[in-house]
Amino acid sequence: MKSTKSKVNACYHLSYEGKFLDHCGVVGIVADSQVSPLIYQSLRALQHRGQEAAGIAVFSEAVACSKGMGLVHDVFNEETLNALKGKAGIGHVRYSTTGSSSLQNAQPVVVSSSAGDLALGHNGDIANTKALREDLKEKGWAFITTTDSEVIIRLLANEIVATDDIIRSMKNLMRMLVGSYSFTLLANNRLFAARDPLGIKPLCIGKLDNGYVVASESVAFDAIGAEFIRDVMPGEVLELSKAGIRSSHYPKPKHQAHCMFEWVYFARADSVMDGKLVYDVRWRIGKCLATDYPVEADLVIPVPDSGRTHALGYSAASGIPYTEGLIKNRYVWRTFIMPKQLVRKQDVRLKMNPIRYIVEGKRLVLVDDSIVRGNTMERIVAILKDAGAREVHVRIGCPPIIAPCYFGIDMKTRDQFIACERTIPDIAKTLGADSLGYLNFERLWECIGLNKNDLCLGCLTGEYPVEIPGEKLRFQKRIEGFQ
Amino acid sequence: MKSTKSKVNACYHLSYEGKFLDHCGVVGIVADSQVSPLIYQSLRALQHRGQEAAGIAVFSEAVACSKGMGLVHDVFNEETLNALKGKAGIGHVRYSTTGSSSLQNAQPVVVSSSAGDLALGHNGDIANTKALREDLKEKGWAFITTTDSEVIIRLLANEIVATDDIIRSMKNLMRMLVGSYSFTLLANNRLFAARDPLGIKPLCIGKLDNGYVVASESVAFDAIGAEFIRDVMPGEVLELSKAGIRSSHYPKPKHQAHCMFEWVYFARADSVMDGKLVYDVRWRIGKCLATDYPVEADLVIPVPDSGRTHALGYSAASGIPYTEGLIKNRYVWRTFIMPKQLVRKQDVRLKMNPIRYIVEGKRLVLVDDSIVRGNTMERIVAILKDAGAREVHVRIGCPPIIAPCYFGIDMKTRDQFIACERTIPDIAKTLGADSLGYLNFERLWECIGLNKNDLCLGCLTGEYPVEIPGEKLRFQKRIEGFQ
Amino acid sequence: MKSTKSKVNACYHLSYEGKFLDHCGVVGIVADSQVSPLIYQSLRALQHRGQEAAGIAVFSEAVACSKGMGLVHDVFNEETLNALKGKAGIGHVRYSTTGSSSLQNAQPVVVSSSAGDLALGHNGDIANTKALREDLKEKGWAFITTTDSEVIIRLLANEIVATDDIIRSMKNLMRMLVGSYSFTLLANNRLFAARDPLGIKPLCIGKLDNGYVVASESVAFDAIGAEFIRDVMPGEVLELSKAGIRSSHYPKPKHQAHCMFEWVYFARADSVMDGKLVYDVRWRIGKCLATDYPVEADLVIPVPDSGRTHALGYSAASGIPYTEGLIKNRYVWRTFIMPKQLVRKQDVRLKMNPIRYIVEGKRLVLVDDSIVRGNTMERIVAILKDAGAREVHVRIGCPPIIAPCYFGIDMKTRDQFIACERTIPDIAKTLGADSLGYLNFERLWECIGLNKNDLCLGCLTGEYPVEIPGEKLRFQKRIEGFQ
Amino acid sequence: MKSTKSKVNACYHLSYEGKFLDHCGVVGIVADSQVSPLIYQSLRALQHRGQEAAGIAVFSEAVACSKGMGLVHDVFNEETLNALKGKAGIGHVRYSTTGSSSLQNAQPVVVSSSAGDLALGHNGDIANTKALREDLKEKGWAFITTTDSEVIIRLLANEIVATDDIIRSMKNLMRMLVGSYSFTLLANNRLFAARDPLGIKPLCIGKLDNGYVVASESVAFDAIGAEFIRDVMPGEVLELSKAGIRSSHYPKPKHQAHCMFEWVYFARADSVMDGKLVYDVRWRIGKCLATDYPVEADLVIPVPDSGRTHALGYSAASGIPYTEGLIKNRYVWRTFIMPKQLVRKQDVRLKMNPIRYIVEGKRLVLVDDSIVRGNTMERIVAILKDAGAREVHVRIGCPPIIAPCYFGIDMKTRDQFIACERTIPDIAKTLGADSLGYLNFERLWECIGLNKNDLCLGCLTGEYPVEIPGEKLRFQKRIEGFQ
Repeated sequence: MKSTKSKVNACYHLSYEGKFLDHCGVVGIVADSQVSPLIYQSLRALQHRGQEAAGIAVFSEAVACSKGMGLVHDVFNEETLNALKGKAGIGHVRYSTTGSSSLQNAQPVVVSSSAGDLALGHNGDIANTKALREDLKEKGWAFITTTDSEVIIRLLANEIVATDDIIRSMKNLMRMLVGSYSFTLLANNRLFAARDPLGIKPLCIGKLDNGYVVASESVAFDAIGAEFIRDVMPGEVLELSKAGIRSSHYPKPKHQAHCMFEWVYFARADSVMDGKLVYDVRWRIGKCLATDYPVEADLVIPVPDSGRTHALGYSAASGIPYTEGLIKNRYVWRTFIMPKQLVRKQDVRLKMNPIRYIVEGKRLVLVDDSIVRGNTMERIVAILKDAGAREVHVRIGCPPIIAPCYFGIDMKTRDQFIACERTIPDIAKTLGADSLGYLNFERLWECIGLNKNDLCLGCLTGEYPVEIPGEKLRFQKRIEGFQ
Repeated sequence: MKSTKSKVNACYHLSYEGKFLDHCGVVGIVADSQVSPLIYQSLRALQHRGQEAAGIAVFSEAVACSKGMGLVHDVFNEETLNALKGKAGIGHVRYSTTGSSSLQNAQPVVVSSSAGDLALGHNGDIANTKALREDLKEKGWAFITTTDSEVIIRLLANEIVATDDIIRSMKNLMRMLVGSYSFTLLANNRLFAARDPLGIKPLCIGKLDNGYVVASESVAFDAIGAEFIRDVMPGEVLELSKAGIRSSHYPKPKHQAHCMFEWVYFARADSVMDGKLVYDVRWRIGKCLATDYPVEADLVIPVPDSGRTHALGYSAASGIPYTEGLIKNRYVWRTFIMPKQLVRKQDVRLKMNPIRYIVEGKRLVLVDDSIVRGNTMERIVAILKDAGAREVHVRIGCPPIIAPCYFGIDMKTRDQFIACERTIPDIAKTLGADSLGYLNFERLWECIGLNKNDLCLGCLTGEYPVEIPGEKLRFQKRIEGFQ
Repeated sequence: MKSTKSKVNACYHLSYEGKFLDHCGVVGIVADSQVSPLIYQSLRALQHRGQEAAGIAVFSEAVACSKGMGLVHDVFNEETLNALKGKAGIGHVRYSTTGSSSLQNAQPVVVSSSAGDLALGHNGDIANTKALREDLKEKGWAFITTTDSEVIIRLLANEIVATDDIIRSMKNLMRMLVGSYSFTLLANNRLFAARDPLGIKPLCIGKLDNGYVVASESVAFDAIGAEFIRDVMPGEVLELSKAGIRSSHYPKPKHQAHCMFEWVYFARADSVMDGKLVYDVRWRIGKCLATDYPVEADLVIPVPDSGRTHALGYSAASGIPYTEGLIKNRYVWRTFIMPKQLVRKQDVRLKMNPIRYIVEGKRLVLVDDSIVRGNTMERIVAILKDAGAREVHVRIGCPPIIAPCYFGIDMKTRDQFIACERTIPDIAKTLGADSLGYLNFERLWECIGLNKNDLCLGCLTGEYPVEIPGEKLRFQKRIEGFQ
Repeated sequence: MKSTKSKVNACYHLSYEGKFLDHCGVVGIVADSQVSPLIYQSLRALQHRGQEAAGIAVFSEAVACSKGMGLVHDVFNEETLNALKGKAGIGHVRYSTTGSSSLQNAQPVVVSSSAGDLALGHNGDIANTKALREDLKEKGWAFITTTDSEVIIRLLANEIVATDDIIRSMKNLMRMLVGSYSFTLLANNRLFAARDPLGIKPLCIGKLDNGYVVASESVAFDAIGAEFIRDVMPGEVLELSKAGIRSSHYPKPKHQAHCMFEWVYFARADSVMDGKLVYDVRWRIGKCLATDYPVEADLVIPVPDSGRTHALGYSAASGIPYTEGLIKNRYVWRTFIMPKQLVRKQDVRLKMNPIRYIVEGKRLVLVDDSIVRGNTMERIVAILKDAGAREVHVRIGCPPIIAPCYFGIDMKTRDQFIACERTIPDIAKTLGADSLGYLNFERLWECIGLNKNDLCLGCLTGEYPVEIPGEKLRFQKRIEGFQ
């Protein structure tokens, strides 16, 4: 049977199907010793990228895989980790953007093929899996699960058997896929990784004493004593072995499309992403907000924990003392990350408690990273005023979000956005804020330190790096040789 | 893509791989009303065919499937049955012969294809799935599970897409498979069934007021008020609809190979199988034992529950009073059916308790259906003697078992068989019996009422109806047109 | 603090409270070796006395107890049994008559006291626990659970601390209790047992090679190789040790009140109870039915499994051939024993399948042990007629049940009884039977072989051995010295 | 039966038994509407006081109680909360100091008595429960569980029945108990609360629109919109009703013994405790550290989250810029709070990640609240140095901990303490710190704002407010009229 690549052509024009893969964290490790404890630690460091499910696959004589619902800490224990023997492996933490949270969707996904056992973990949202699936069904393929993972890994296995060349097969696969993705692949005892050509999702390389590691964020390296080497380049396909890294490249697009939201909110402050320390970016954003939106006030207070770094930057630049006027309940998780709307509302008040004695009679600068729906911010302003704050000046670390994200962040419809088709004073009024400052557009790339054209600004502009039906495409021909 | 049938030729010479499918019970129902309650009741009537896992698949807009480990009664409840809406569906109970008891192996197995959703339930052991799997892998197929079910249903789906003809596809599939099987197939809202060309496994057709039903045994019909119509013929492929039955035939082999053990032990006494009431067969066997192995004795007692009907026949023919001298513990399940050897040993004594006051000083005829390993029978004779029985004359309702079964019954190695390469007096001595009579060979087909050449006698003769490496093939060319 | 005995006088006049303890099976073993495996086996042999919960308590340095919901087989495994170390212990299987099935109600119940750890298992229904509880509350006692077990064991512990004499304390406790009970008590490493003064519930003594055992039925001894010694006498209190048995007696009542239903239905056929083999009693009942209710018929068939022994007796006495015309589904449990009415109805049809080929055109004698509500029997007659039976003559192994049982059998209200205030022809008509014969009253004690006055016939006569408010008391002064 | 109070005399000289109750959070609410949702929210606000188990008891016709292992969020859902109907109730979160984490130990504990149903929740460690238990056993009491809760509530119930006066009974109970405790008691629909005479554990009163609430910390009020009224006074016993608060007092000790560690570490920063805002105390401590232990440095960084407020105070007083140089993993819980030593070690590194780009080449002031074992601090200093910090000056917000706490904090043996019998330079060396400053003793009460003699300083001085065998008693006669 021939490779299927000729039929399922890759392009960024496939129609949008409204069904996306997960936003997730991935890791892959190859070393001289058992890797499962290292993968476990790495996944815990990446836990903020997904709390719904976790999984680890390793190879000794065959690929063994263990997955479960919940936090890494709950899914694995000493016994299950010990049972996962092998010197090469991959791991995954999953946060569903689709609302369906089941074990079937957990990763890594594993298949057996004539090229051996394959296990795949991926972070990203691939727009055209439904089309690919239908196309393959027409050829007689039948699918055991409803997951996108099955489509991708069976396609990849098919390529590998056809070409007998894993790197080439991954490139062939990438040609078929439209969207954002960072892959780790375990092919028997060999470890591979790839990043989408636009570099939408992060992926970076670290070095262990006796091996190599790839992970979504550099904090995973810190957790296992690995040294950060570099980011995986957009479109790069890698094989990692104890001996070193073998790199290969997919055709290079003119521009990249790094998700600006990783720096603004999603990544951990101590991660370095595409060469930029997340903490630094946030601090600079805070400084810019102080410069661009000065105000006479008594205290700068963050919305904990997301606005803390921005607030410190604001305080440093403005000279207004920084303090913590809102105490966060550590046992009520991030609003953003929980699937149910119901839970969101119920928990807002419990999450943040103002210290009356600090805020009473004060003029406050309240700093957060971003506003999506605005519900939480509206309530925080209200509880600060209830607690006696004289003025509340809201400063936001990114421009107004006005459009959906199709690449992994759970912001799907326009009417959810408080900033959509509204003026700033209008929004300030809704929030109950005495003033409101959003980070200026130019400041965003200035603070991140990357070229504007290499960032995905879809949710800020409504112009997307890949074609989404009904949405504007930002650059017509990103990749040379693509139609 | 072309049908794969040309490559994976069916033959009875494929090498034996020691890995078999499950021994199971299947049912399929199409009607004017919700079928899931009927399937549930049918499965409970077939529960003796498998206690490890149970599953039901029905079609309304898509195929919905629910399965679980354990008894039908434990897997389903009112809520789960109500959720399974649809007027066509199939069900399955599973008893593993392979030792691996996991939910992954539970059936029905479901796939989505361009021909819609397909759900398959099968009873039988297919000898060449490993070869088929390897063959398909070479073509680039990758497998999500390690089950034979995935191989079979994906092959079938592939055929259906290639031919756009389900009946033809099932025949193509049958051409590829070597072994015993009775299938029920739900293809969207259409219900199909098939029985292997040798008729090794049973399958029969019943009529509901408003539809049709196929099941492994006719007791399933009794449980739902359906009327027995006829057996599915060996090699028959059927579509069942509310309107009626559409039948088609696979090339007819010269002889059939009905498993004699279904009548002797496995089926329920109240089932009618290939035209023969199981109860009648067993009673006749008992009569023949009385004729061929008469003895002066005080009481005929059965090994409950398996030897009861045979014992009644013996008593009727011999005039020796029948009574129940061994009381069975209802809460300790059939020795035969539990996977672990450990459990077998521990439970033997607990299972059967002799009534001392009945057996003391008596000459007993002890009747059972068969002897496999002999451990249980040896212990029963011993406890009867301990309880004061003066003589114990053992009568067995089938000839000596001396060879493995490769088609679904859990008898795998020769050294397990007490009768293997031993004389009857020798066996009697081991059992501690005062005399021992096995059913004569000719009596077996006489009692069943079928032609000797239409029975599988593999476990009694070591000659098998399909080629098993290292074993004798009984008839060289069973199926016309086969190699 | 003084013993509480002076206040809570025992009498059989306490008001009826409608709340009873469980019907159950108990066992106690003291030996030279680990007893938990023996207790486990015994409990499995007693499983028919209760399937809702099981528990074992043993003493090594302290009393360790393990319990769970479900069958003995499911509650315990090798690991949990090994963890229960000790050379003295008790076990319990529970069948709730109260409808509340929870772990809290599982036994043994364990307390720590200044006399050490106490564990109690009991079989029976004590009528005055609510009154006792209220009485104790008035004295300042507070109760942690809602179980009767807590009342009884704390009362007992209180007596033991007050008297420093366990035997005397058990007698004091017995003076306070009204109802039926068989107790096993583990007091640190000492094993005690007691049976209620009327002997309503069974309890018997067995001998192991290296110890002693008490159990509800003698089948428990058979399961562990113990030798039956004798029944515990009504009102007897025992201490069992490796050295032997120390016996003591509670004041003797004029009459006893053995539950006749144990022989008719509840006990296993291979048990010997108060000197009478259950199997024999049932066979004799069958014979009497044949003598008293002769009929011209072709076949005697039992309702399996409960009517089998009676049917064999009927066949032997009448000369009408015995056969099995109804096949029971082994996986659908006893109708009697499942708590929910719903399940009862749903399962009747599935439980019993007639063999049409046997019953068609035949005149049948259908034999069962008893009729309570009549629903099941009505349906069985109907399905036999549906299957072509020409006549169905019903013969029942005990007199009509017309009144509730207050001592452990789940028959609580009069309107449930088909026989209540109806004539026999009337009942036969309802059942659809061609004739109906209930065992005559005199035959009952003749077949059991005990004095009429030593049997509890409450459910047959409405006259009870202890005073139940609103019911007739059979003998005014059963126990000498009681008020 | 008389009240037991005359026998079990309260004194602070009872021997130490090494078994303590839990450290916990309690809440009690009485209102005009359903209280279970309010209790739920309050418990979530108190979640930092215990993550092992949670429970709620409410009264409508009887006391209903629901408890489970895990976070409040996991134990309860909408359905279980709705089932808890009632206008008065109590709640509890539990953190075990004893290592045994089981549902049996979860609170509230409920009993039924002649005075109705009683439910008790308590926070604290009572030293003499074992002695009380033995004393009661001698009187004939038998205990169903091994929990201290059973002892306390049965004693209390006994008192209530004897006196028919709940307030008086609680005082009688308090006379018997030695240790720290804050109680909430639901007696049918009446709500009571009490605080130990030394005020070791916190308890405060809030007002709802339509009722009253007591809770361990005032943050519980913020979470449900209640208004803080005042602290419960040491030795105060209260009844709360919709109408108001009825207060009564236990004999007043000369000094109180508020646990200083609540302000330093345990309580939430936004709680007000005994009149002192926790945040303020910590900020002042930071200022004092800056004054008393000045150092030339580039940055002040906290150990997140515990040292944050102290660090802000240090930064404000010293003028050295504050920043966040260590990023905490939100999904790895507080080291302090997890029971297993194993987990502590494994998680330290994962918990805290230094931002190399911030700390590299810098002189750091590292601020935390306290040092117990020192392991974590040692590792933090090491990872900061590894990340390039030029100097690390450690500043600690309380004096050296040198002795065990017997009242609820998990610090049990002397050899665990890094400060025990060591000099400050010695400790600094072990930690790898360039300098080390512990808060001076006088500063502690100055910052808290209470009299030195009203604080429990046991863990800092080894002198305890109640007699602990082998330990020094701080004040011989704390309570007038005792012994």
